[in-house]
Amino acid sequence: MTTTVPLASYLFTRLRQLGIGAVHGEPGDYTLRALDFIRPAGLRWIGNCNELNAGYAADGYARVKGMSAFCTTYGVGELSAINAVAGSYAEYSPVVHIVGCPARMVYGSNRLVHHALETGNMRVYADMYARVTAAQANLTDARTAPGLIDRVLEECRIQSRPVYIELPSDMVEAQVDESRLSAPLHIEPPTNARDLEDAVVNETLERIYSSKRPYILVDGLVRPDGIVDEVNELARVTGFPTLAITFGGGIINGSSENYHGVHAGKFGSIDHTPYTDSADLALLFGPLLSDTNTQGWSVVPKEDITISFRRNSIDIGSASHELRIKSFMRSLLSKLDPSKISAGAPNPPLSSPRDLLKSLPPPDPSAPVDQDTFYLRLSPFFRPYDIIICANGTPLVGGRDFILPPGARLVNSGVWLSVGHMLPAAQGIAVAQREALEAGQQPGRTILFEGDGSFQATAQELSTIIRYRLDVTIFIVNNDGYTFERLIHGLEEEYNDVAPWRYPEAPRFFGAPEDGSYAVETHDARNWGELLKVLESESFGDGKGLKMVNVWMRREDVTRNFKAALVLAGKQLLAGSE
Amino acid sequence: MTTTVPLASYLFTRLRQLGIGAVHGEPGDYTLRALDFIRPAGLRWIGNCNELNAGYAADGYARVKGMSAFCTTYGVGELSAINAVAGSYAEYSPVVHIVGCPARMVYGSNRLVHHALETGNMRVYADMYARVTAAQANLTDARTAPGLIDRVLEECRIQSRPVYIELPSDMVEAQVDESRLSAPLHIEPPTNARDLEDAVVNETLERIYSSKRPYILVDGLVRPDGIVDEVNELARVTGFPTLAITFGGGIINGSSENYHGVHAGKFGSIDHTPYTDSADLALLFGPLLSDTNTQGWSVVPKEDITISFRRNSIDIGSASHELRIKSFMRSLLSKLDPSKISAGAPNPPLSSPRDLLKSLPPPDPSAPVDQDTFYLRLSPFFRPYDIIICANGTPLVGGRDFILPPGARLVNSGVWLSVGHMLPAAQGIAVAQREALEAGQQPGRTILFEGDGSFQATAQELSTIIRYRLDVTIFIVNNDGYTFERLIHGLEEEYNDVAPWRYPEAPRFFGAPEDGSYAVETHDARNWGELLKVLESESFGDGKGLKMVNVWMRREDVTRNFKAALVLAGKQLLAGSE
Repeated sequence: MTTTVPLASYLFTRLRQLGIGAVHGEPGDYTLRALDFIRPAGLRWIGNCNELNAGYAADGYARVKGMSAFCTTYGVGELSAINAVAGSYAEYSPVVHIVGCPARMVYGSNRLVHHALETGNMRVYADMYARVTAAQANLTDARTAPGLIDRVLEECRIQSRPVYIELPSDMVEAQVDESRLSAPLHIEPPTNARDLEDAVVNETLERIYSSKRPYILVDGLVRPDGIVDEVNELARVTGFPTLAITFGGGIINGSSENYHGVHAGKFGSIDHTPYTDSADLALLFGPLLSDTNTQGWSVVPKEDITISFRRNSIDIGSASHELRIKSFMRSLLSKLDPSKISAGAPNPPLSSPRDLLKSLPPPDPSAPVDQDTFYLRLSPFFRPYDIIICANGTPLVGGRDFILPPGARLVNSGVWLSVGHMLPAAQGIAVAQREALEAGQQPGRTILFEGDGSFQATAQELSTIIRYRLDVTIFIVNNDGYTFERLIHGLEEEYNDVAPWRYPEAPRFFGAPEDGSYAVETHDARNWGELLKVLESESFGDGKGLKMVNVWMRREDVTRNFKAALVLAGKQLLAGSE
Repeated sequence: MTTTVPLASYLFTRLRQLGIGAVHGEPGDYTLRALDFIRPAGLRWIGNCNELNAGYAADGYARVKGMSAFCTTYGVGELSAINAVAGSYAEYSPVVHIVGCPARMVYGSNRLVHHALETGNMRVYADMYARVTAAQANLTDARTAPGLIDRVLEECRIQSRPVYIELPSDMVEAQVDESRLSAPLHIEPPTNARDLEDAVVNETLERIYSSKRPYILVDGLVRPDGIVDEVNELARVTGFPTLAITFGGGIINGSSENYHGVHAGKFGSIDHTPYTDSADLALLFGPLLSDTNTQGWSVVPKEDITISFRRNSIDIGSASHELRIKSFMRSLLSKLDPSKISAGAPNPPLSSPRDLLKSLPPPDPSAPVDQDTFYLRLSPFFRPYDIIICANGTPLVGGRDFILPPGARLVNSGVWLSVGHMLPAAQGIAVAQREALEAGQQPGRTILFEGDGSFQATAQELSTIIRYRLDVTIFIVNNDGYTFERLIHGLEEEYNDVAPWRYPEAPRFFGAPEDGSYAVETHDARNWGELLKVLESESFGDGKGLKMVNVWMRREDVTRNFKAALVLAGKQLLAGSE
């Protein structure tokens, strides 16, 4: 006799097997019955305030945990979240989006149900989602549903991109074969054809051995590509000067002597181009080469000196070889013989944000906090295993100067750059951190650098942080509006203003308890003296509960060298103008 | 010599000509230069906190003003707003969505820019929008751009549905022929073939004259169809018993003797089915017959007794005649001879919410405020020309019992039912009201009935109300979570909970000035006594500035007869279950 389980139970059990511990989302009548199966499957429910924010939170959770899931309702819910899912797609974040849909009989009917645009055209949202998800499953048949679920979950993991599951309300309790749950999913990265892999490994090694002026350039897809350890090992073993592109910040161990921070060309705090422009080899890992990430492609090395290591190909100059990166890297590292390396110390030598920080005088306590030194001076606050999250806007730029301790990591955006993304993402990450703690690991803190304009876009998720008693530290970089946009165009224009919220009152308004059951600290820092006092406070530093500092900065302030990039961006908007 | 104007100037001038006074939106680098042309064209800029909310605000403004516009940026901005635009599409709200896009040369390039999913596939968002907009214009050529703009603006108005305009950043200042601006747009409703119109008018009149048990049933598309006055006139002249479907509340003058309120069958506070079930003629105006709007189609009259008056067709029984409603109604009214009407007084007689209210005893001041009588008892608070907005959830249901004074109107949702829609919509409506005041009209107040769960979804637009010093009165129907969902399924489940915000502190947190430049009043009402005190206060009643009452209700409370509808909905989710 076949033992069966309800379909929703099958789905959530599979998510649990993949290491997911929490499902984010928003209830809606088409999803309600499915939600009953979350807790019995060993998962936690995290209710967000709206669906876009649930999508962002799931994105953050996935970046840390390796995979995530969230639920929305048909139409209104899923469409509200599509921007978050598109961002996960653009930046390779593996998110499972489960949409609670009307019962199947409704699809063929000529009766209009709520959240539908019209009758006869009810899968229009699924069609839209096809453009921003790697795979889709429409669970209309109990016999095929488990297989469809398995396939999309495998694709989610293998492609490291979001997938979409339509769960009609009348399928939630459909009985499916339970035994299938004992068969493991196929999520191991595929291996390579041995001959091709050997040949390309050898060619890569030859280039590594013979180069006189090499460097390693690390971008952010290294993380979804699953080769963080391998790239660190390569940097360590070769001793090659190593730089990151903005999205790849925090991947290389920040205490490595040969790691010189983020390469932002002439727009960075340190200009590394005197070295990189004369290099004869660039080993480029996990590239996501958007205009913003690469400072208008100015830090992208020339093709003829570049080997690009991508998820599914190794590109040597203009020759592209279809190879899976994980297997390739293992092979490369096992064959690498450091004694054959001919490159000497870099000349001119490369400095790093560590040197910049050392050269800074102590700040004048009465001076306003400035973008140029804020991020450098914040760095000693970080501890191993902290996860530091940079909102889109000035924190994304300033965060390039962060110096991270071992095990700490950075979360930022490489191409999507959606304002408001990072507060909900921090909430999702804090859930992942809590799970790590529960699993007996020792996670660091969750620290968000947020802009005031960004905060306003998705502020209600602060209440989700409070509601679930999560541990999050937030620096609000309060520069009175959209400073990033101001410097591109419209310095004094009203459209770059935002309303003057009283940020330190946020936790109280959003329902923080005052019975001592959850620690909340808020501070205003109007100058360096006030900020340093907060940073030195032991209770602020423990990262428990909600810590929040409202850091006042001047409205037109950004890091000095970056200002030119924004002015240039303003001009490029007119490129091709008649 | 041809005089030229920048393309953005052309676009915004056309919007101004159509009566639009304000453009909502969110800045983004691809839009910035276009925003410079808003004020010079005589328009106001209203900056929202995020794009979804801007879309909702534009929807609200359009419902009152007849047309609206909002701006977002490419990708992240427009996708965040797509749920609002889809709602405008579903409910026939004429919104112009202007998307600031990258410069044209980027589209053909192989370089990845921010907010793009990939190169070579850059119009993917426009493709998604094609499913939820009535017309689109991609302004890539200065010679054709003005014509494309004119065409989509005409379609927006004629179809009363959203349209989509792609404005590449390098086209903003492209010079276009100014003289075209003197040619009026073609937005007059089309006329009908005379013979067909006459025949259908005559057939309709015959049915009106001969009916013994007729009624008029008014739904919400009457407003976008532009026949509010005509339907009121027909109800007045015929004296037929007149009812509304939920979405059509507030269209018929609330003080008319033959208007009996909203027909919600056995789920309404008054069950009108004893009369409607035995009727021989139903004149159905502006139908949007969704499950929620019609209580599971239970109030939809049988086809053989129905004449449906739609935007582009008059359907007599099963025969559909393609006719434009506006012209048809004028002809019908001009030919109608009331002396030929044979119907007598309705039997059984129909009562109305006015009768219910009269029969209510005064509330016990110490008793909790209850859903069953809250909406009835609130009605005397309303004044002529107030605009009363009901959030999705319990206010949508309870608002069926409102008794409106002449000129007052109701805004609610007929099929889209997106949680969080109505606070931003109220902000947009308050801007329209301000413009009416500036134009020398005497608008009433803007009064929002909001749920606590809804408020949390889009709460930041309260700061937009404050920032622009708008006049809005808000009743928060605070029942501690998603009560609507609770009663469908999961009465005690955590997924129907929301965080316990301190609502009365909202204005202060969101930056309300405390220098007396803008009046803010907040109140807590935990029982009838506290609520009545607020309602009787002169300063609260003036509707100036921001007035807010947090009305505490029991978490499982909804109007008595409607509870059964929610239980039924919970069961229907399983319809067809295996």
